[in-house]
Amino acid sequence: MFLTRTEYDRGVNTFSPEGRLFQVEYAIEAIKLGSTAIGLKTKEGVVLAVEKRITSPLLEPSSVEKIMEIDDHIGCAMSGLIADARTLVEHARVETQNHRFSYGEPMTVESTTQALCDLALRFGEGDEESMSRPFGVSLLIAGHDEHGPSLYYTDPSGTFWQCNAKAIGSGSEGADSSLQEQYSKDLTLKEAETIALSILKQVMEEKVTPNNVDIAKVSPSYHLYTPSEVEEVISRL
Amino acid sequence: MFLTRTEYDRGVNTFSPEGRLFQVEYAIEAIKLGSTAIGLKTKEGVVLAVEKRITSPLLEPSSVEKIMEIDDHIGCAMSGLIADARTLVEHARVETQNHRFSYGEPMTVESTTQALCDLALRFGEGDEESMSRPFGVSLLIAGHDEHGPSLYYTDPSGTFWQCNAKAIGSGSEGADSSLQEQYSKDLTLKEAETIALSILKQVMEEKVTPNNVDIAKVSPSYHLYTPSEVEEVISRL
Amino acid sequence: MFLTRTEYDRGVNTFSPEGRLFQVEYAIEAIKLGSTAIGLKTKEGVVLAVEKRITSPLLEPSSVEKIMEIDDHIGCAMSGLIADARTLVEHARVETQNHRFSYGEPMTVESTTQALCDLALRFGEGDEESMSRPFGVSLLIAGHDEHGPSLYYTDPSGTFWQCNAKAIGSGSEGADSSLQEQYSKDLTLKEAETIALSILKQVMEEKVTPNNVDIAKVSPSYHLYTPSEVEEVISRL
Amino acid sequence: MFLTRTEYDRGVNTFSPEGRLFQVEYAIEAIKLGSTAIGLKTKEGVVLAVEKRITSPLLEPSSVEKIMEIDDHIGCAMSGLIADARTLVEHARVETQNHRFSYGEPMTVESTTQALCDLALRFGEGDEESMSRPFGVSLLIAGHDEHGPSLYYTDPSGTFWQCNAKAIGSGSEGADSSLQEQYSKDLTLKEAETIALSILKQVMEEKVTPNNVDIAKVSPSYHLYTPSEVEEVISRL
Amino acid sequence: MFLTRTEYDRGVNTFSPEGRLFQVEYAIEAIKLGSTAIGLKTKEGVVLAVEKRITSPLLEPSSVEKIMEIDDHIGCAMSGLIADARTLVEHARVETQNHRFSYGEPMTVESTTQALCDLALRFGEGDEESMSRPFGVSLLIAGHDEHGPSLYYTDPSGTFWQCNAKAIGSGSEGADSSLQEQYSKDLTLKEAETIALSILKQVMEEKVTPNNVDIAKVSPSYHLYTPSEVEEVISRL
Amino acid sequence: MFLTRTEYDRGVNTFSPEGRLFQVEYAIEAIKLGSTAIGLKTKEGVVLAVEKRITSPLLEPSSVEKIMEIDDHIGCAMSGLIADARTLVEHARVETQNHRFSYGEPMTVESTTQALCDLALRFGEGDEESMSRPFGVSLLIAGHDEHGPSLYYTDPSGTFWQCNAKAIGSGSEGADSSLQEQYSKDLTLKEAETIALSILKQVMEEKVTPNNVDIAKVSPSYHLYTPSEVEEVISRL
Amino acid sequence: MFLTRTEYDRGVNTFSPEGRLFQVEYAIEAIKLGSTAIGLKTKEGVVLAVEKRITSPLLEPSSVEKIMEIDDHIGCAMSGLIADARTLVEHARVETQNHRFSYGEPMTVESTTQALCDLALRFGEGDEESMSRPFGVSLLIAGHDEHGPSLYYTDPSGTFWQCNAKAIGSGSEGADSSLQEQYSKDLTLKEAETIALSILKQVMEEKVTPNNVDIAKVSPSYHLYTPSEVEEVISRL
Repeated sequence: MFLTRTEYDRGVNTFSPEGRLFQVEYAIEAIKLGSTAIGLKTKEGVVLAVEKRITSPLLEPSSVEKIMEIDDHIGCAMSGLIADARTLVEHARVETQNHRFSYGEPMTVESTTQALCDLALRFGEGDEESMSRPFGVSLLIAGHDEHGPSLYYTDPSGTFWQCNAKAIGSGSEGADSSLQEQYSKDLTLKEAETIALSILKQVMEEKVTPNNVDIAKVSPSYHLYTPSEVEEVISRL
Repeated sequence: MFLTRTEYDRGVNTFSPEGRLFQVEYAIEAIKLGSTAIGLKTKEGVVLAVEKRITSPLLEPSSVEKIMEIDDHIGCAMSGLIADARTLVEHARVETQNHRFSYGEPMTVESTTQALCDLALRFGEGDEESMSRPFGVSLLIAGHDEHGPSLYYTDPSGTFWQCNAKAIGSGSEGADSSLQEQYSKDLTLKEAETIALSILKQVMEEKVTPNNVDIAKVSPSYHLYTPSEVEEVISRL
Repeated sequence: MFLTRTEYDRGVNTFSPEGRLFQVEYAIEAIKLGSTAIGLKTKEGVVLAVEKRITSPLLEPSSVEKIMEIDDHIGCAMSGLIADARTLVEHARVETQNHRFSYGEPMTVESTTQALCDLALRFGEGDEESMSRPFGVSLLIAGHDEHGPSLYYTDPSGTFWQCNAKAIGSGSEGADSSLQEQYSKDLTLKEAETIALSILKQVMEEKVTPNNVDIAKVSPSYHLYTPSEVEEVISRL
Repeated sequence: MFLTRTEYDRGVNTFSPEGRLFQVEYAIEAIKLGSTAIGLKTKEGVVLAVEKRITSPLLEPSSVEKIMEIDDHIGCAMSGLIADARTLVEHARVETQNHRFSYGEPMTVESTTQALCDLALRFGEGDEESMSRPFGVSLLIAGHDEHGPSLYYTDPSGTFWQCNAKAIGSGSEGADSSLQEQYSKDLTLKEAETIALSILKQVMEEKVTPNNVDIAKVSPSYHLYTPSEVEEVISRL
Repeated sequence: MFLTRTEYDRGVNTFSPEGRLFQVEYAIEAIKLGSTAIGLKTKEGVVLAVEKRITSPLLEPSSVEKIMEIDDHIGCAMSGLIADARTLVEHARVETQNHRFSYGEPMTVESTTQALCDLALRFGEGDEESMSRPFGVSLLIAGHDEHGPSLYYTDPSGTFWQCNAKAIGSGSEGADSSLQEQYSKDLTLKEAETIALSILKQVMEEKVTPNNVDIAKVSPSYHLYTPSEVEEVISRL
Repeated sequence: MFLTRTEYDRGVNTFSPEGRLFQVEYAIEAIKLGSTAIGLKTKEGVVLAVEKRITSPLLEPSSVEKIMEIDDHIGCAMSGLIADARTLVEHARVETQNHRFSYGEPMTVESTTQALCDLALRFGEGDEESMSRPFGVSLLIAGHDEHGPSLYYTDPSGTFWQCNAKAIGSGSEGADSSLQEQYSKDLTLKEAETIALSILKQVMEEKVTPNNVDIAKVSPSYHLYTPSEVEEVISRL
Repeated sequence: MFLTRTEYDRGVNTFSPEGRLFQVEYAIEAIKLGSTAIGLKTKEGVVLAVEKRITSPLLEPSSVEKIMEIDDHIGCAMSGLIADARTLVEHARVETQNHRFSYGEPMTVESTTQALCDLALRFGEGDEESMSRPFGVSLLIAGHDEHGPSLYYTDPSGTFWQCNAKAIGSGSEGADSSLQEQYSKDLTLKEAETIALSILKQVMEEKVTPNNVDIAKVSPSYHLYTPSEVEEVISRL
């Protein structure tokens, strides 16, 4: 069974007899090895929280970036191959800047997400911009536009969904269950911060410190929390 | 037997000894894994109804789009890989807009369907616009033009047929039988709505709610039903 | 024996040790799975008749096109992959229109057939217009030009022959035998219609109706029979 | 032994450990399956005679062309894949026309043969004009130029030889023996016609008729015999 | 297990079923075979120290370059394939010069590192500048810009991290442990020199001499130590 | 052992674990199947003699060319694939003509040989002029320039050597031994003719006649012997 | 173990699981089959000495070139595939001439060596100038520039080292040991000649004669020794 499957991945973008695209499924496996990231949408804005794996005390924690700004009104958290995520984020930054320049207004969160997924979908096509394999990364895209706050989730197949709350990465299964229990549309941003970090705490093997988690919000502008702001959220747990 | 077949898919677009194109057949398998979609043509217009699989209560149901507008007079329901369908629909939108611009009149439903299939047929050819594999999606294209209402069905091979009623996706076999029993050319649009939803109800594992089905009509313009309009149809069952 | 053959198809256009081109032979197999089509040449013109497989009562019979017009004086019947046939017919339509425009006269039937076969022969060459595999379709090309009526038969290898009568598709073996018995150069067009349909009737599993056969003639212009004209021929059997 | 060889054909143009080019050898096999063709050079001109396999009485014998004119002073008989031969002949026609246009005189028979072989040699090179596999055809090229009448024989490797007489195709072995016995440089054209047809008669399974053989001469111009001229030669046997 | 993995490396940039990129992992193995290099950041600047393997007494030690200048304010130490490192360093030199020319100021250390990693990430993409395989080299990039001194570590996947201290190459495991014990943010540059060389001494099989180690600092300019300066550091051990 | 080797030829130009290039070695095998050719350099000029295999009495012996003129002062004898040799000779003819045109003087024999070998070396590189496989031919290049007479020997690897005497082809082993015994720098051209033909006689299976050998000399101009001149040399044996 | 390795060479430039590049290692094997070459640097200049394998007494010894001039101040000795070395030397000659033309001064020996290695490193990249496999040759590059005399050693990986003395080819192991024993920085050029030839004598199977060795020096200009100069050195042994 296993060997038969391996026959199919050489062509990165071909169907198996069961109608599956294995390279995409394998890329999704890459994300299951990644650190956990969580997003929650509230009426006041969206909260993103990520685990950072600091493998050595000599590493500079701030250089391990798992949450990045795309535009003033959009940020994203990631799980999987960080170098791939950087390529996608860089692409999205160019797209949003071009949109501002051409139309004099910010790009909507959905259009930005669609632009990212268009690039992700065309892997293996030999295009200028596309890659020869799927991007091994999932993103939680948090934004705020004329439709209010929104949270999108993308996977390596180039598909996206809008969510109220979502977890990705190695701890996503347990974290998603906890989110379904604790999420309510009436959460305040502050409550969302607390829930995100308490769930992250459950799935992490180490003690939570400002060094090994990052938090950001889009409300309505992107803001990455300072170590002391993270410390303040930790103290609430 | 099985291993022999695998010899053929590496070249995505080559014949097997029996004269078959396996990548196309495998793509058709991808559709059998997809959610069910149903279309019915009446004299008053065409009705499309689809099942939406909402895997988590935290997902925004409206962001799972299985019915999309192509032009003011054409819409389509889909089953299979949603990201592939988006590429085809985007292509069709450009074609219909170009047609309006060049000829000052809407593109016919058949020409629009042909344009979609031309793109689907040329997979593996290394063209600018074509993909390196078949599109893993089937479409039900509903439209209204100078010839009145019409319903087309396309598959991954780039072939299309005109139908009075058709179901695609994982529940298509049972749904097609029910359609043959219940379909009549004299149906009103309202009766068609009821039949579509009652058949969808049979093949779905969950209770039908405005959250997990979408309905649209082209009569003569495309209209996606609001949650309350869907609720009204459900109440008739 | 079988496994050895499979070694050769990966290169779509290479010889086997016995001097055979397997992809072409496999494409010919695709045609043996197709519906039956019959052509007869008379002094008054050429008759084409095809079986249409209507897999569901909800399918619109007229949307299953197995006979197509190429130019005012040329039509063709097909068996095999319909989407491939459409590409060939579209190519021939452009060629005949270009010829009319450049030379102010219709293209001869043989030149049109040659143009189709030139495209078919160059599969796997990576040209702009050619395909990466053989076209999985056979055509019966009926026409009328300065040399009078003529009937050509093409296969996936890009070879063509001129015939007095010919059958292609799944029932071609039996139909060819019947044609040899019943064909005479002195047939009237009306007699040819009757022979074509009576032979088609023998090889079809279902009862012949205006819904599941199509008839066309080129005499000297292309004309596709209306349902009532088909009905009239059926009534003669 | 056999399986080992198959390892080599995937690269269409690579040497085997014994220094052989298998794709060329396999193409030569394709010719051994072809119909027999015979050429004889006399002082008065060159005679070509071919067997035509008429697989069905409904086929138009004149549409099975196995002897073709290249230029007014050059003709050729072929054995193997007819569609390949057409491509080569078309190439030679353009070359000879270009030569006439550029130099105001006919191209010599050797230069024409060389031009054909240059194209045949470069298979698998990815050139504009070349094919991805060897041409599966052998030609007997008969011509008449300032050096008098000449007969050339080409094979799929792109090699050519000048001959006094030569047979190609499935019956070539027996026919070549007969030619060696019966050939003399002092033959008249009429004697050459009789010899060619009597040898063809030996290797053909069917009775020789104007329907299943073609004869042509270059003396000094190309002329394809009419059915009655063929009949006249048959009557001499 | 092992054989199964080998199935995946032929496509240099495809995922394995476990979501891994084997060519990147194999390139990382190439670095484990390389000589050891160490970097330490202090408030006064950054120190780099490398082991040089002088395989023959007839080799010119200064021609074995394992520390190179990128710009006046940036240097790097390397472990792995030296020819690959040269290509990356050459690329970075062009980037930093272009930046100085375009903006009239030095490129930041992080931007320079990002530029190197962008090139490293795109292996196998067929770009002008990229390679067909991952670069088999890790770099320690030491620099000094408006943010003060900084030390970056890059690996073949195109990922980078900012560190206070880091060891790479065959002795990196032991050296990293020693660095964690001895490193403090308050080290003077002189203390850092001593620590770097004492750790290098532990992992090297031979006696440390000015011939088989190189030391450099960026404080704030790049300076490669002369043999007598190296001798002076050795004497402190 | 044998199967292992076959693994390597698919890439036409890659090293085996022992540092060998198998496609080149296999091409050299192709030459061992070829007819024998011999060259001798004397102070008066260079003699070339070749065996011609006339497989049928109906073949025109003069059309089997195994010795060809490159320029007025250079000729070459060949063994192996004749169609490949023609491509190389044609390339050399263009090079020597270009040289005459550009510099107003004949190209030296060494430069001509180098130009041939440059083309031979670059097989498999995808260049305009190069082939996808090694040229399966060895050449003996005889010439006369400002340095006097010279004889070069080339093989499929693109390497060449200057020789006093050399044999190539199926009988080369025995012929080379005989040459070493009989060769002396003081030979007259006439003695060289006799030696060449007497050695050729030893390795040929048939009786030597003007029909199955060719002789040429460059002294200082290229001259191919007429049948009666060959007859005269034969009579001396 | 062995079969596993063969899996990797098909992609000419990919890492094995152990982080190795096999095609480069196999190319290095090609050099171990080559003839021995030796280089020694003295204060007066650099001496190069090579073994020439004269396989037949009929070969012209001077046409076996194993030492070549690159520029007036640079020469090189080679071991491995001579045709590959010619390509590299030709490339270096163009580079040094371009440098002289652009800057009005000779290129330094290190820059020339770097230029050669840049070409060697990029094998398999599909560039205009690069080859599809590693160059199967090692070079000893002797030169004299503003920094005085220098000797470089390059291998197929595109790496180079500066040396005082170095041997390459089949006898390199023994020759390198002897060089380490006998080399001193104070050698005169004459002593270096004697050492080079005496070591070469040890590793050669045949008696040393002016026919089977070549000697050259760069002091400060390149000079290839005449047979009598070589004879003089031999007489000193």
